[in-house]
Order: sequence, then C-alpha cells, then structure tokens
Amino acid sequence: MVFVRFSALVLLALVAGCGTPASPTPTAPAAPTVAVLPSWNDGPARAAIVAFVTAVTTEGGKDFVPVPQRIATFDNDGTLWSEQPLYFQFLFVIDRVRAMAADHPEWKTTQPFKAALEGDQKALAAAGEKGLLQLLMATHTGMTIEEFDAVVREWITTARHPTAKVPYTQMTFQPMVEVLDYLRANGFKTFIVSGGGTEFMRPWVEQAYGIPPEQVVGSRGKLKYEVRDGQPALLKLPEPELVDDGAGKPVGIAQMIGRRPIAAFGNSDGDFEMLEYVTTGPGRRLGMIVHHTDADREWSYDRGSHVGKLERGLDEAGKRGWVLIDMKTDWKVIHPQP
Amino acid sequence: MVFVRFSALVLLALVAGCGTPASPTPTAPAAPTVAVLPSWNDGPARAAIVAFVTAVTTEGGKDFVPVPQRIATFDNDGTLWSEQPLYFQFLFVIDRVRAMAADHPEWKTTQPFKAALEGDQKALAAAGEKGLLQLLMATHTGMTIEEFDAVVREWITTARHPTAKVPYTQMTFQPMVEVLDYLRANGFKTFIVSGGGTEFMRPWVEQAYGIPPEQVVGSRGKLKYEVRDGQPALLKLPEPELVDDGAGKPVGIAQMIGRRPIAAFGNSDGDFEMLEYVTTGPGRRLGMIVHHTDADREWSYDRGSHVGKLERGLDEAGKRGWVLIDMKTDWKVIHPQP
Repeated sequence: MVFVRFSALVLLALVAGCGTPASPTPTAPAAPTVAVLPSWNDGPARAAIVAFVTAVTTEGGKDFVPVPQRIATFDNDGTLWSEQPLYFQFLFVIDRVRAMAADHPEWKTTQPFKAALEGDQKALAAAGEKGLLQLLMATHTGMTIEEFDAVVREWITTARHPTAKVPYTQMTFQPMVEVLDYLRANGFKTFIVSGGGTEFMRPWVEQAYGIPPEQVVGSRGKLKYEVRDGQPALLKLPEPELVDDGAGKPVGIAQMIGRRPIAAFGNSDGDFEMLEYVTTGPGRRLGMIVHHTDADREWSYDRGSHVGKLERGLDEAGKRGWVLIDMKTDWKVIHPQP
Repeated sequence: MVFVRFSALVLLALVAGCGTPASPTPTAPAAPTVAVLPSWNDGPARAAIVAFVTAVTTEGGKDFVPVPQRIATFDNDGTLWSEQPLYFQFLFVIDRVRAMAADHPEWKTTQPFKAALEGDQKALAAAGEKGLLQLLMATHTGMTIEEFDAVVREWITTARHPTAKVPYTQMTFQPMVEVLDYLRANGFKTFIVSGGGTEFMRPWVEQAYGIPPEQVVGSRGKLKYEVRDGQPALLKLPEPELVDDGAGKPVGIAQMIGRRPIAAFGNSDGDFEMLEYVTTGPGRRLGMIVHHTDADREWSYDRGSHVGKLERGLDEAGKRGWVLIDMKTDWKVIHPQP
C-alpha cells in the first residue's frame, strides 16, 4: 500500500508532465518460428532462462526440481510493465485525486491535495513522504475492497499513460509475458511479488499476465469485516500492514507463498532482498534483473533514477550470479504488438 | 498464531488427561464401489455436495462457475481433523514446553511454564489468556521459519495423541479428504482457512490433504528478514499480525486469496463469518458445518464446548441454508483406515 522508500519528489515528474517520453512502439521484425521466448534475441539472458528451465525439469538430472517446488516470483513495476515517469499506481493516485475532487471541495485549499490538483511542484515536494502517504490513504482506503476493485477496473480500462497515450496494459513487457508462459508450461507456479498494492494489481493481472489473484503478493493494509444490512463487506483501513518492498519482499513471500522460490525476476534495488533470498537457497537457482537500457523504445535509467533505482544490484549481480537482461539488445519488442 | 478467543481453561483438559477418549477406530463396512465420496452415506449432506458440484460445473447451466472462480475454503481444527480434548496445536505447545524445559531451568519456578510442566490446573487457570499467549510466544517465536518448520515436522511424525495414542495425521477426517479430492477433480482450488498458525500447518497439510503451502491461510505473526553470515533467514517475531478466526477469516481470505470463495466448510462459531461471507455472495453457494455427534467414534459436542463451540451456527444454519454434516449418520468412517 505504502511505498515508504519512495521519494515524493518523483511525483513532480508526473505533474510536470516530464520524463523521457516513450517513442511509438516500433514494428517488430517478422518473428522467426520459434516456440520458446519468441520475442527474445539469442544471447546470454535468453540462454540463461532456457538452461535453467531445462536443468530443473530434466528428470534424473542433478538439478531436477519436483513440480510443487517450481515457484517463480516476479516484481511488477519495471519488471513486468513500465514504471516511468512514475510508478503507475501513483499516476492512478493522481487521477483519483482529480476524479474525487468534486466531492472534496476542501482539497482546493488543503495540501497536499491542492498541490496534486494544481501540479504545484514546490508544494508537493514540501509535503514529502507524509504528503504522499496522505494521498495514498485518501484514494486507497475508507471503502470496501469491492468498491476499490471497481475503481481500479474502470481506471485500467479507460486511463491513458501521460506520454505514451496508450492504456497501461499495453505497457506490459511482451518478452516477460513469454517468460511467464514458458515457466508455467514447464510446471512452474508464477507469482507477482511487488511493492505495489495487492488490491491495485489483482483486478487486471490475471488478464495481463495469466496470474490469478491468489498468486499476487503486494503491499497491503489492514482490513475490517463488517456486515451492513445483512451484506458482508471488507473495509480498507488506513493502517499499512506490510510494505512489500526491499526486505519486505522475502517476508511477503514467506507469509503468502510459504515456500522459497527457485527463480526470481526484478529490476531495481527494491528487489535485492528477494533475489538474495531466492538465489542463496540450495540447488539450482535463477536470479535475473531487467536493466532498462533502451531510451528509444522505453526508458534508460539505473543508478541515478528516483523511480526504479538500480545500484547495489548492478554492483553485485556478477558475484551473485544474477543475469542482467539488457532490454535494448535482448528484446526484439518491448510492449505487446497491436 | 494466537487464539485470543480461546479460554486457557481448556488447557486443563489436556494436563489432566481428561476429555472424552476416542474409541479405537471401528472397522468400516465394506465400501460399495462408488467413485465419489465413498466414505459418505447417502443422505442430505452428501446429496448437497454432489448437487452443488454438479450445478457449478455444468456448462450452459444457470449456476455454472468458470474454473478460476471455483475456490473452496476449509477450516482445519474440527473440520479436517479432530480437535479434542484441545486444539492439537496446543498439545504441540505443551509438548514443546516439556521438550524445551531442559534449556530453560527457570521454567521450573516461573508461571505459566511451571504449571504446564507440572500439569497444575489451578495455576494454569490463573494464568489465563495472558499465560496461554506466553506459552505460544515461547514455543512459536524467536526462531527462523526454517527452524520452526523442522520442529513441526519432527513433532507431526513422532508425537501421539494423548488418548487415541496414534499420530495426529491419523486423526484427519477421511470423508473430508474425499470432499477435497472431489472438489479438485472438478476444477476447484482448495484452501485451508484456519485459526491455527500458518507455519504450524504448512509442513504437513500437503501430504495429509493435498493442499500446498501457498493455499494455507492461518493466523500469523510478523516476520523479520535477516542475513546471517551471508545466509538469509526469516525470524518469527513475538508480534501477532492476524488472528485468522471469526471475523478474521474473511480478512485472511481477502488478503491471501483475493477472491470470494463459493464454498466453505467449518464446524464451530469461529467459522461463522467465513460461512456468512462465502454464502451471501452472488450465484450458487455452499456452506457446510461438520457437527460432532459421534461420541463413540470421535467426540460429541457443540453448544457447551470450550473447544469448537457451535451455537450461533446451529441456530442460524437453517435460515442461512447451511447444511449440517451429522458425523454419526453421514460418515461411514471417521479417520483414515490403516
């Protein structure tokens, strides 16, 4: 629910409408007739995935893993879909503040709402993380999970990315969707483990990634069960319970999956502990990092970025055996082709 | 993790070695050659299960439910296995206090440990829920989840029920295991939703019920991720996070499953809200209550019982359309036959 590590400064990027614009999705070269990972170029990243899957599924081999233990976890923002100029859930927050403003006339004169409505960078920066939390609580709590679900479904269907001008579900990563499919075809259960809110993801990830709600681990708040006029409802309370980021990711995995995964995919230092937890287990393991290197087709960022900062992961990937996915050279296409 | 509703008085039952003893498992009559629910007698309970499954799986029928929405939840204590003279997790607690006593000489003179070690009913009663919580924290936290997992595996393999004198996994309910199998054969995903600790159940329920760890929703405490000598560990902290009982069950379902189940099975008033949440949803629903009516083959109890009290459920089952399972008349056998 709450991204405590997330600097409110990055809110400015959206409000100012800045950030590197995504260029129109280029036409992919005619795909060769390959059954496995067709949107991937031959290279070390694709080879690492295929070698790992082959090893753990070869019966009698030294690295064989029985089906029930084939668990793979995926970060969402920056790993399964884009995250610039701002985590998409925060673009949702801004959209919600604007949509809800008519019912909250006081927001016109109250920070941080006034700043969000007006795109006032200085005031938003001044509001800091506390202000960001206020925006999150105002837009994500005080309603039932069913009500919130309906709001997210409406938004994901109708909203457009501020610069790419396409629905957010068209900003998923086609090569990663193929990895999910490939793993599932080989007996894996695939889970999302994201800093994003569980209830923000569940309404749309089944269609986008083939991942059912019960396999979504995210940040979460407390819920309260109430019966209103004989009808039960679960109320979203403004009390964060787990921030599923950084060291919170292994916690979310242990609580909700209850098995140590054997493969993990991330893109930022918020995924470091998940990759560490997964790849230090016994037996063959796979840890991969999506490296955003393609300023032409997506965005290019790592160490200096407010959103999706990747520093420790870059420094330690080599010695930890984690494989970098070079978006520019490894992926034939980035987003799904229309 | 913590059963706040649970009166410490019932601890006395164990320590005193009282409680209705289970009679030796009787020989089942030769099972007729039926493929479905063979340990069930023909009757309204069995008929309700078969009618429900037929309705929701008949394509084109008005009650058809697509596979991904076929979610069924099961309480554990008293629903999938016995729970007398005391929830088995508390028998585990007592066993642990005794096993750990050598490393805690102070327990010989400190309540509530002294009382647990000595079987001192009066002192245990005086310690109350606070004392029970102390026993739980002392035996369930301050170790890693891997360490706790190993302790539970050892216990479930070696421990014997105080009166039945058999391993606890032989006290599961064969007819309910058949319901789990029958539902899964019809496209259902089956989940445990129990007041018991998630980490107490996960080590053995896959073998006992065919339910994998990621489909176990239970009470839980906070975890902390730590790296010790380069090896990650998840430490179980003495801070309860969710008591997955009563109104906590719909909360656990919403957080961990993220879909409203269409069928639920319970046995006590701790399951009331789960049954209510599940059976008030739209479309065809099934709510069932295991009624412990068989003093000869298991135990007989409902309204007056400290463990597994069933009162509101009995009062409202009729008007809510919940079906009672009469253990004595509906089940040909209770526990798995050797």
